Amino acid sequence: MNIHFKDILAVLPVENGYSVEKTNVFVRGNIIAGIGEAPQGFNADRVIDGKNRLLSTGLINAHDHAYMSVFRNSADDVLFEEWLYKRILPKEDMLVDEDIYWGTQLSCMEMLSSGTTSFLDMHISKNIVPKAVTDAGMRAVISKGLVGEGRAEYGLTRLADAKEEIADFKDSPLVSFMLAPHAIYTCDGEYLKIVAEAAKTLGIPLHTHLDESPVEHAQALEKYGKTPTEYMADLGIFDVKTICAHCVQLTDTDIDIFAEKGVSVAANPVSNLKLANGIAPIKKMLEKGVNVAIGTDGPGSNNGQNMFREMNFHSLLHKGINHSADAVSAAETYRCATLNGAAALALDGCGELRVGNKADLFVMDIDQPQFYPRNDLMAALCYSARGTEIVLTMVDGKILYENGEFTTLDKERIIFETEKTVRKISG
Amino acid sequence: MNIHFKDILAVLPVENGYSVEKTNVFVRGNIIAGIGEAPQGFNADRVIDGKNRLLSTGLINAHDHAYMSVFRNSADDVLFEEWLYKRILPKEDMLVDEDIYWGTQLSCMEMLSSGTTSFLDMHISKNIVPKAVTDAGMRAVISKGLVGEGRAEYGLTRLADAKEEIADFKDSPLVSFMLAPHAIYTCDGEYLKIVAEAAKTLGIPLHTHLDESPVEHAQALEKYGKTPTEYMADLGIFDVKTICAHCVQLTDTDIDIFAEKGVSVAANPVSNLKLANGIAPIKKMLEKGVNVAIGTDGPGSNNGQNMFREMNFHSLLHKGINHSADAVSAAETYRCATLNGAAALALDGCGELRVGNKADLFVMDIDQPQFYPRNDLMAALCYSARGTEIVLTMVDGKILYENGEFTTLDKERIIFETEKTVRKISG
Repeated sequence: MNIHFKDILAVLPVENGYSVEKTNVFVRGNIIAGIGEAPQGFNADRVIDGKNRLLSTGLINAHDHAYMSVFRNSADDVLFEEWLYKRILPKEDMLVDEDIYWGTQLSCMEMLSSGTTSFLDMHISKNIVPKAVTDAGMRAVISKGLVGEGRAEYGLTRLADAKEEIADFKDSPLVSFMLAPHAIYTCDGEYLKIVAEAAKTLGIPLHTHLDESPVEHAQALEKYGKTPTEYMADLGIFDVKTICAHCVQLTDTDIDIFAEKGVSVAANPVSNLKLANGIAPIKKMLEKGVNVAIGTDGPGSNNGQNMFREMNFHSLLHKGINHSADAVSAAETYRCATLNGAAALALDGCGELRVGNKADLFVMDIDQPQFYPRNDLMAALCYSARGTEIVLTMVDGKILYENGEFTTLDKERIIFETEKTVRKISG
Repeated sequence: MNIHFKDILAVLPVENGYSVEKTNVFVRGNIIAGIGEAPQGFNADRVIDGKNRLLSTGLINAHDHAYMSVFRNSADDVLFEEWLYKRILPKEDMLVDEDIYWGTQLSCMEMLSSGTTSFLDMHISKNIVPKAVTDAGMRAVISKGLVGEGRAEYGLTRLADAKEEIADFKDSPLVSFMLAPHAIYTCDGEYLKIVAEAAKTLGIPLHTHLDESPVEHAQALEKYGKTPTEYMADLGIFDVKTICAHCVQLTDTDIDIFAEKGVSVAANPVSNLKLANGIAPIKKMLEKGVNVAIGTDGPGSNNGQNMFREMNFHSLLHKGINHSADAVSAAETYRCATLNGAAALALDGCGELRVGNKADLFVMDIDQPQFYPRNDLMAALCYSARGTEIVLTMVDGKILYENGEFTTLDKERIIFETEKTVRKISG
């Protein structure tokens, strides 16, 4: 299908930043075929009027556990130990494949309705998430969470499952994979090396949680005499392309290691505040050239899957705690939520509105009080937008969400099934 | 007009918190006439179906400079000095009454469309804001900003203007007033005492900015050998009922003074981050029994007038920086944004959904992905809601906003006029 977005404000990459300009955007098949000028021989199947609309490349959610939407608003305002050991883990054990499927699709609904086109997921149930995401039509990088100790069977079985999942979905054009050793406190050094070696062989990146809590940091220092980052680096894990979620407690030396090794960070500001882990040193990471992306984390530790809220926190927090109002600008934040995410997730042709890139985009209704007057629209996108103003989300050239309706997702069914899951796990 | 909200989820005050229950809410004239049971002889002029709707008392924005919407997204990611002295003050000097009027109404639009029914404003232009707010039909407490030095004429003239404004609007049922000495660095001690005395005589509270920036705090220590709070207390200012905005740098002793003197705080988390002033010690204030309300601050230092975002930051920040995930709960945050605001603003019969209270309320569409599954709806309201899901806002029994339309505000005109202001001040 060929679509012409007519006379629309679009966020375009320019040297050293972005420019929001009224232009025309042409989608042919799954590709941005033209910006400004129509490509030769272009015949629009549909023309979408750009009046009071802003078009942007889709947001990329760089760390998620999408299936956890069934835990949303079920474990708030409680200490981490109660959250994890009383509210989450016992209920997680009760989830079967069907619960994971519908829970994942509920998160897809929320992401699509708030402008997110791609996400990186860590899940617990073989083959279910890639199926749920493929059915939704989203672009995703999927990783089965791995825990293990040396060559103990349970860890190797999980790794084998992950490899099988990857093989089973090798022909899905919108789904790619990483291997996901869960964390240094659930995987020992030998197992981490086994997984990293497997990733190298498969030619795919690693996805892990790193240095999320003060406890994790202190334990690594005590056990290894090193920070979690130094420990991972010394094991050689970072010789494989890696994205680390959280990274709240990173030291200056750790940040240097990230920059040198090209390790990407998924910043999760809301989750880190909610679970009382603190605030990651994002300003320093950006200054040292670390590739920082942004993720919501799972809905059990966030209550939402809305990247606009994440952008809001990402930008404002670091101004406040660093006493520098010019830190982490709107444009930098937008880049973290788009291009840096694409780089971290190895999504070629994503993250920017450019001719030849994938047609992953959202359109926002800016005829709302929070967007007036029309001063700097990059600032508006980062600081004034709520995420709920999205009227259209397209992935790979297909409209998946428009004016409150989903084209691939069965909203009523998803709500029905996830409510059923909640009744089951609430016992 | 009598309105029956039928079978609707409503946030009801219960002992030690809130309960979200499906019930019926009856509005007669400007009063909540019944909850659950219809009041005797009640005839509904209109029945509103509560399916997938949540009803709450209206949010109370406890610190604002509403006219500053014309500066929205015009001064982002810059240091405070550039923000104030280059981007805001020179442009503020170019504003005439008409600019203030329409700028204020633009903020009223955003507040009404995001569930705020009342606000406390500090403005710069006699009689214009009360007129704009009265025309909008919102409930507001208004205060003309005062700066002065002893008995110097300019300060006394401003105070006289403020008194005249109060007299001119004494018959406006929805508008009340405070006196607003701007800050300790723009008012000297003698002038502060004159203003406090005037407030006592008028029987109205004081509204001021206090201890916003580290610079203000350091200067007070240097100049007076006291914190800003100690300085104000020693001057006797707090013998008059007072609400202080910001209070970012408060010491433990300062918090004790606030608790003892019954001084209210308007927390402005987004503004404090954006302008790099830091994070107020809200957790301690709440623990010591200080009446903490929440405000957006003006749109020049926030980019939005959306109290839901403010609630989001208010709750999450203090969990994160205090490493206590159970700090500042959803219910506490909601109370800060409603009942505590009513107490700070001296709005009798506001801040809670109770029979006999004022009919100030909002209705939210919760048939959206972020509200599923339906676990704890108080958590959903504080952590998942974006503020843009509001479908109806009522003030004093009148529907001012419904399904994207305003009943008292001329949206097209407001946009036209504020854009004109922007063109003028952008030169």
